[in-house]
Amino acid sequence: MTRIVCRQLAPAIADLGANVRMTTDAIRESVAAGAELVVLPELATSGYMFETPEEAQSVAITPGHPVFAGWSAAIRNAGADGRSGVVVGGFTELGDDDLVYNSAAVVDGTGVLAVYRKIHLWDKEKNFFTPGSVVPPVVDTPLGKLGIAICFDLEFPEMPRSLALRGAELIVVPTNWPRGNRPEGERYMEVTAAMAAAYSNHIGIACCDRAGTERGQDWNEASCVINEHGWVVANVDEAGIVSADLDLTLSRDKSLTDLVNMFGDRRPELYGALTDPR
Amino acid sequence: MTRIVCRQLAPAIADLGANVRMTTDAIRESVAAGAELVVLPELATSGYMFETPEEAQSVAITPGHPVFAGWSAAIRNAGADGRSGVVVGGFTELGDDDLVYNSAAVVDGTGVLAVYRKIHLWDKEKNFFTPGSVVPPVVDTPLGKLGIAICFDLEFPEMPRSLALRGAELIVVPTNWPRGNRPEGERYMEVTAAMAAAYSNHIGIACCDRAGTERGQDWNEASCVINEHGWVVANVDEAGIVSADLDLTLSRDKSLTDLVNMFGDRRPELYGALTDPR
Repeated sequence: MTRIVCRQLAPAIADLGANVRMTTDAIRESVAAGAELVVLPELATSGYMFETPEEAQSVAITPGHPVFAGWSAAIRNAGADGRSGVVVGGFTELGDDDLVYNSAAVVDGTGVLAVYRKIHLWDKEKNFFTPGSVVPPVVDTPLGKLGIAICFDLEFPEMPRSLALRGAELIVVPTNWPRGNRPEGERYMEVTAAMAAAYSNHIGIACCDRAGTERGQDWNEASCVINEHGWVVANVDEAGIVSADLDLTLSRDKSLTDLVNMFGDRRPELYGALTDPR
Repeated sequence: MTRIVCRQLAPAIADLGANVRMTTDAIRESVAAGAELVVLPELATSGYMFETPEEAQSVAITPGHPVFAGWSAAIRNAGADGRSGVVVGGFTELGDDDLVYNSAAVVDGTGVLAVYRKIHLWDKEKNFFTPGSVVPPVVDTPLGKLGIAICFDLEFPEMPRSLALRGAELIVVPTNWPRGNRPEGERYMEVTAAMAAAYSNHIGIACCDRAGTERGQDWNEASCVINEHGWVVANVDEAGIVSADLDLTLSRDKSLTDLVNMFGDRRPELYGALTDPR
């Protein structure tokens, strides 16, 4: 089993120092409480509601920034059996190309294992960020193979499908879900989409939303961990923490019965149009 | 607006005559109540719980069978503005190749417009049916372009995606959902998957489940109509009827905001592995 903890924090907009401290403290606390995988929100180092591209640029950092060394030190001894733990968290990235990306870092005790640049930018993010242009990675970590998606990514079913087909054992989703409407008794649609993705791909999904009101924007505050059957096994508590134990190896066998396999039963030769150009 | 009615019937196993009468009567009643699109369950002419391939074969029919002429006559004058209405219903099909398929017919006042053969067979269906081998059609009907999926098909996100990308304005799903487990307060996972598919593809989905207990098997009895935002707008009533008005043209524009388009924002060049062979 892997102890997954999502920390539904409220980053301070454009205040890198405050967010470095808050995120690092949250990782340390979570590890002390038994976490092996700590998930932070999208753009946890910077906040979300930028007013200008210059403001985003002012808090953009590279994967060499000391915050990631801090995350690495905080998670180093978190894993069971002497393994390192893992942190997945969002940040505003300054690329070698001087462009700004909405990215997530995968960090273990040795440092930054991978950086994923969000490929599906939501709405006004397009004014502040450049979309990623690389096939989203599946990252080999001490806890297993992690597929990373950020927020709106997960609403494109190709995204979790692609990660799962390429061997992900858990999908980890730093997110900032702007507060949406929902009929009484329903989950937010973003959670519904995540549940369906978990079910269809027979894989767990850990979603870490954010909290707080930022420049007038509220959030769903709907962080959750979903198991490989698609059911939410842990919701966020009043402290903004989700904690769940998942056996990530259960995602490896896609069989539901002797005659049903969620991957083997696919008919890719009959899915016309899926890969047509836009 | 299009008035959609799903009839959650209880077919009699292997009793073609009884099912012909029941389905045709249900269409007539629905039309009298204002239906323009009538959706029937999967395998409505035959029932589902076959014990042997021979039993399935014994009630397998071709698209030339008189039942479809009966459905056609019953729906002929159902549409608004002089259009014909449309019936979508499941049947056990005998192919020209003497093989047996789990199929759905799309019928209007002129006769059978199209037959779709299920491409994702669930569990023991593999003992009785041959899977379809043709890209699922989008059918031009007097009510609009209908994409057809049968039951388990919908749990492969490629299926609704492919239908919607190819111009479907509504996805119509004859289904037999074997009774599943669900945590308290949750919808059945099949409905959750349908809601997510409707949202991600910005398209309505009409699901017609079946009722009754057949050879010990119960069903979810979760027929519903879902709008293009992914919300269930009508559940089944105590008479086994779902009735909803949907504007199918709302599915044509995939924009959610000036900067968000559920199709335009796709990144097909970055979805590695989706079309790899099994």
